[in-house]
Amino acid sequence: MLVDYMHNVTDDPLGPHDVLIKLNATGICHSDIHFMLNDWALPKMSVFGTKCAGHEGAGVIVKVGDQVKNLKVGMRAGYKPIQDTCGACELCRGPYECYCPKAVFTGLAVDGSYKQYVVSPERYTTLIPDGVSDFIAGPIMCSASTIYTSIKDSALQPGDWAVFPGGGGGVGMQGVQLAKAMGLRPVAIDTGADKKKLCLETAGAEKFIDFKETPNVAEEVVKICDGIGAHAVFVTAVQSYPSSISLLGGRVGGKVMCIGLPPAGSFHIDVDPNQLVFKKQAVQGTLVSNMSDVDKTLDFAARGLLKPIYTVYPLSKFDEAVQKLRRGEIAGRAVVDFNSE
Amino acid sequence: MLVDYMHNVTDDPLGPHDVLIKLNATGICHSDIHFMLNDWALPKMSVFGTKCAGHEGAGVIVKVGDQVKNLKVGMRAGYKPIQDTCGACELCRGPYECYCPKAVFTGLAVDGSYKQYVVSPERYTTLIPDGVSDFIAGPIMCSASTIYTSIKDSALQPGDWAVFPGGGGGVGMQGVQLAKAMGLRPVAIDTGADKKKLCLETAGAEKFIDFKETPNVAEEVVKICDGIGAHAVFVTAVQSYPSSISLLGGRVGGKVMCIGLPPAGSFHIDVDPNQLVFKKQAVQGTLVSNMSDVDKTLDFAARGLLKPIYTVYPLSKFDEAVQKLRRGEIAGRAVVDFNSE
Amino acid sequence: MLVDYMHNVTDDPLGPHDVLIKLNATGICHSDIHFMLNDWALPKMSVFGTKCAGHEGAGVIVKVGDQVKNLKVGMRAGYKPIQDTCGACELCRGPYECYCPKAVFTGLAVDGSYKQYVVSPERYTTLIPDGVSDFIAGPIMCSASTIYTSIKDSALQPGDWAVFPGGGGGVGMQGVQLAKAMGLRPVAIDTGADKKKLCLETAGAEKFIDFKETPNVAEEVVKICDGIGAHAVFVTAVQSYPSSISLLGGRVGGKVMCIGLPPAGSFHIDVDPNQLVFKKQAVQGTLVSNMSDVDKTLDFAARGLLKPIYTVYPLSKFDEAVQKLRRGEIAGRAVVDFNSE
Amino acid sequence: MLVDYMHNVTDDPLGPHDVLIKLNATGICHSDIHFMLNDWALPKMSVFGTKCAGHEGAGVIVKVGDQVKNLKVGMRAGYKPIQDTCGACELCRGPYECYCPKAVFTGLAVDGSYKQYVVSPERYTTLIPDGVSDFIAGPIMCSASTIYTSIKDSALQPGDWAVFPGGGGGVGMQGVQLAKAMGLRPVAIDTGADKKKLCLETAGAEKFIDFKETPNVAEEVVKICDGIGAHAVFVTAVQSYPSSISLLGGRVGGKVMCIGLPPAGSFHIDVDPNQLVFKKQAVQGTLVSNMSDVDKTLDFAARGLLKPIYTVYPLSKFDEAVQKLRRGEIAGRAVVDFNSE
Repeated sequence: MLVDYMHNVTDDPLGPHDVLIKLNATGICHSDIHFMLNDWALPKMSVFGTKCAGHEGAGVIVKVGDQVKNLKVGMRAGYKPIQDTCGACELCRGPYECYCPKAVFTGLAVDGSYKQYVVSPERYTTLIPDGVSDFIAGPIMCSASTIYTSIKDSALQPGDWAVFPGGGGGVGMQGVQLAKAMGLRPVAIDTGADKKKLCLETAGAEKFIDFKETPNVAEEVVKICDGIGAHAVFVTAVQSYPSSISLLGGRVGGKVMCIGLPPAGSFHIDVDPNQLVFKKQAVQGTLVSNMSDVDKTLDFAARGLLKPIYTVYPLSKFDEAVQKLRRGEIAGRAVVDFNSE
Repeated sequence: MLVDYMHNVTDDPLGPHDVLIKLNATGICHSDIHFMLNDWALPKMSVFGTKCAGHEGAGVIVKVGDQVKNLKVGMRAGYKPIQDTCGACELCRGPYECYCPKAVFTGLAVDGSYKQYVVSPERYTTLIPDGVSDFIAGPIMCSASTIYTSIKDSALQPGDWAVFPGGGGGVGMQGVQLAKAMGLRPVAIDTGADKKKLCLETAGAEKFIDFKETPNVAEEVVKICDGIGAHAVFVTAVQSYPSSISLLGGRVGGKVMCIGLPPAGSFHIDVDPNQLVFKKQAVQGTLVSNMSDVDKTLDFAARGLLKPIYTVYPLSKFDEAVQKLRRGEIAGRAVVDFNSE
Repeated sequence: MLVDYMHNVTDDPLGPHDVLIKLNATGICHSDIHFMLNDWALPKMSVFGTKCAGHEGAGVIVKVGDQVKNLKVGMRAGYKPIQDTCGACELCRGPYECYCPKAVFTGLAVDGSYKQYVVSPERYTTLIPDGVSDFIAGPIMCSASTIYTSIKDSALQPGDWAVFPGGGGGVGMQGVQLAKAMGLRPVAIDTGADKKKLCLETAGAEKFIDFKETPNVAEEVVKICDGIGAHAVFVTAVQSYPSSISLLGGRVGGKVMCIGLPPAGSFHIDVDPNQLVFKKQAVQGTLVSNMSDVDKTLDFAARGLLKPIYTVYPLSKFDEAVQKLRRGEIAGRAVVDFNSE
Repeated sequence: MLVDYMHNVTDDPLGPHDVLIKLNATGICHSDIHFMLNDWALPKMSVFGTKCAGHEGAGVIVKVGDQVKNLKVGMRAGYKPIQDTCGACELCRGPYECYCPKAVFTGLAVDGSYKQYVVSPERYTTLIPDGVSDFIAGPIMCSASTIYTSIKDSALQPGDWAVFPGGGGGVGMQGVQLAKAMGLRPVAIDTGADKKKLCLETAGAEKFIDFKETPNVAEEVVKICDGIGAHAVFVTAVQSYPSSISLLGGRVGGKVMCIGLPPAGSFHIDVDPNQLVFKKQAVQGTLVSNMSDVDKTLDFAARGLLKPIYTVYPLSKFDEAVQKLRRGEIAGRAVVDFNSE
């Protein structure tokens, strides 16, 4: 049962340290589709099929467990791709708790945000600040915060070129905005007049490259980026992986930041060590944000720096939205409104 | 003419800002063999064949140009893989001048250290401190300093596991020693009793894995490294590239550091983005050291932390040494003594 | 002779590696006044009085030495507070060449920019990019680039609070703009309606605190900065040093960045180690920028992110401008136009 | 009641998430004396006197609360200067949880380790690895781990000079050993033949400066450190604060790291901003370690890199040990053995 938005609240087993969140909105993410199609070949995928998908929810706390200390009914809260971590391991003690080997993946080990009522442990619940609507907050729980972390990890300096293949999509468009807000110079690669307009006029990209109209995208990127190449390439569109290193051109220290998760056995990067060595380049990955970076991304939104570039679908069009996303037809982020039929 | 050790000093055109170095020793490096075989497919290789090889020389300044300011006859000096850089570009103004697009590659654009007299511009000449013999200083000019920079760039913390495939070779063995001196825990992967003994007893590796006797090297590395995997893998043996990521195991933040330069079209790394993403891992490259890091590596040697693990060949056995290196039969570094016949 | 703007070009001894720059503009900086008053008590000050002041010049190359390689007559160039460095020491080999112990201070060891023709060694000459006027470029040579480096060194993250005591002055106002462009949240502390307007409307400060109208400035800073305190305080107004740490409030990791140079024996910071220890706070200094950071600051200007907040004085009002600056009556930067009488 | 080592276990209120640790040893630290004398003037000190002192305990878990998940009776555990943090704030979500504003200070808000049975919340309990005795583990809980964090925060590179005023004392001696293990070059400043011998022969300092026999300590430090000055000075002896910056000499980027906590109103650092500015120097503080760094310090001990440099006192000599420490008569660390009368 992948979508279960009619779920009855009374069924939920609420532990003493848990809160129950009534979601008002959920983002729809490509990862959900991978979960549904089971095409990542994760060992954990054996549990596939028992939980409903979704990992970008935003709503309000409606019930709290006996021993909950800091959270209260009525507080606005989000639901993230990782529902909880062990809290005791080496990773949980540092800033990378989201890589905890016992992390509980939302939509996989526990029900995801494609249903209205979700259980979240107090210690790993994110509060939503004033001034950030649920439609913006939902996608921050995973996609926006992940790309924020990736940009931060890239260690780019203000004034550097940040290139986004798939910059017109849900994750990429948030990346373009965050990069702009962080003083970087974003270049979006995508296709179509709608996405171009959104990227340039709303999200703040300095340049847009339409890959269908550009004979040699890598050459165009190099040309834009000082005739040298991107300081970093943030790959959210998985079909861009094979060509991603070429966008770095001759940039010494250039980095390919991997974010999008391709189906197992599909898109890879064939790395020639000589290319990395001669130009001091790197390829590295980012899974999701830690708690702290989710808060920081929400702060960008609270300051108006993550604009509402999304399409809201009522519950009745949930399936349609998922199908559209699968076909790559959605510019920006798709969000489902649980309160609209 | 690849080896020209009888070269006549009077032929050298010494510019006003240059010094003439009479070399006492040169290291022999796999890169020299690639230069000779012309198998890297570099565009610059069109000049191949006009210059003699070698890029790890150590000797003494015997002549200085009219406008040389700080260097004097009698000072000990080294000859590095990059003979000069432009001094004016963005890279030359920062700590990555060795990546200058106009860098003059020794043994390629100018004669290398397989001859006794070499010309070096004052501004890019490295002085050799007291207490470091020419046989140790030579290989520091390229191999030791490069792996020092790679270790530094990996940002490992004291106590972390540093794994060296090819740890018994010339570059790797220096890496093991430097890693030890930097507080890391080195693990060497190579084969044979000689290399094992050198790695463990002389260089200071905590563990040695003989890849010919170990059914599953990656499993063994993971087992040694806390049951998780290497914090970083420093690849000097190019045939290890394809399996390098597997040595990181499940180490969050693990890094493959690329140093060895394989022949064009031979060993690659097939990167599955999902692996990097789920474990926040990275693959990155290091070419050579900047001036500052060469000095720092020499300082390790001056403090006795780079032990003399090399075999000295007299001039008459120069060719034999090169052939042995090519067949992988030399443990540690091979150095040619220009003053011994 | 402090101001020598009628200087005759033919008198200049132009070395083979030097270029002659005809300045169109010079910034006027508080440091110049300290040089004139000789109140820093530097040992080097024994040479005081023999050279004219000024260290923020912008103009055009009108003559080049015999062996100049990359620069040409007609190129636009700047004149910085450090005219040259030794190029050979440990510091010159890294990114901190501006701290070279043999650095040649402009206006002290060699004539400064308060005259129209200045000699600059090719290797340490900064080129001015298109789109940056001489009135903007001049002050970038010292003040804007220094505060850029200080902001970079503070390692603040986008979204952090950057507080500028003296934010309405020449250096501070450029700091506010650069902080904004780097994604930080600038707060300016100064006094007067003019400075308030400039800080908020032109420079982009989020808040302005008029220290004459605010009973407790530190409390106000803490209140603005999340009720905690500044992430970093950038001190350009030297009278703010004694109270600077109080602006950090309880911010863990907060930093006081020292930029302004008070007269010897005047303003100090009385550091209670317990304060630094309990909040992991720091106090650190920045002198000037290295070559690379000057270029980066110019790039911000070329992209329109350093707005023209300056007053231009003709030659005939040079002295008047210096007196005004001394009395703190100039909002933004004062620049002298050498081509206007 | 400052020392309460006869405390009866049955009195302890053990919460559902707590464990009860039976201590075998406690370190004695100067901070304990400050707690007893109440001379830090902390606002929190109003609670002074109700709790017994001590914050470096090592022992074994003898009882666990109902909801404890990962810890079990029989596991070896330590008791740290911070007994718990809120777990929910911005600081608790990052690597600086030890600076949480709601941190529960041991010996102040809750009973310290000068008694045999202590209560520790599961989430903030540190486990002691095999091979580390309780006499070594105790002092790691605060002093050794704090100075490890301070060294790490100083960002020194292997080969840099680390100077320890008070290097013969309990904290300093552990700092010297850790610095050595991290590839740094430690210099200890203290007095007396015993401390000299311990510092040089056991702890691994490269040099020892006896401040009673050295006319000008700063000059001597500069002379040892390349004729330039320390890369970092780690101040554990609070009377060294006033002169600490002078030990940096002319070292560009030199840092004074504050660790020792002087009585309120006693030793300060009078910072001349010009000194910091001209040499890019800094002064910064470190309170204690986060959970992760305590584990890392224990790992150094488990690898034999923190040698047993301590004096063990039986219970009956507890008071005598405290008095000796107060008079500065103890070389290395003093530890009390709860199992010996």
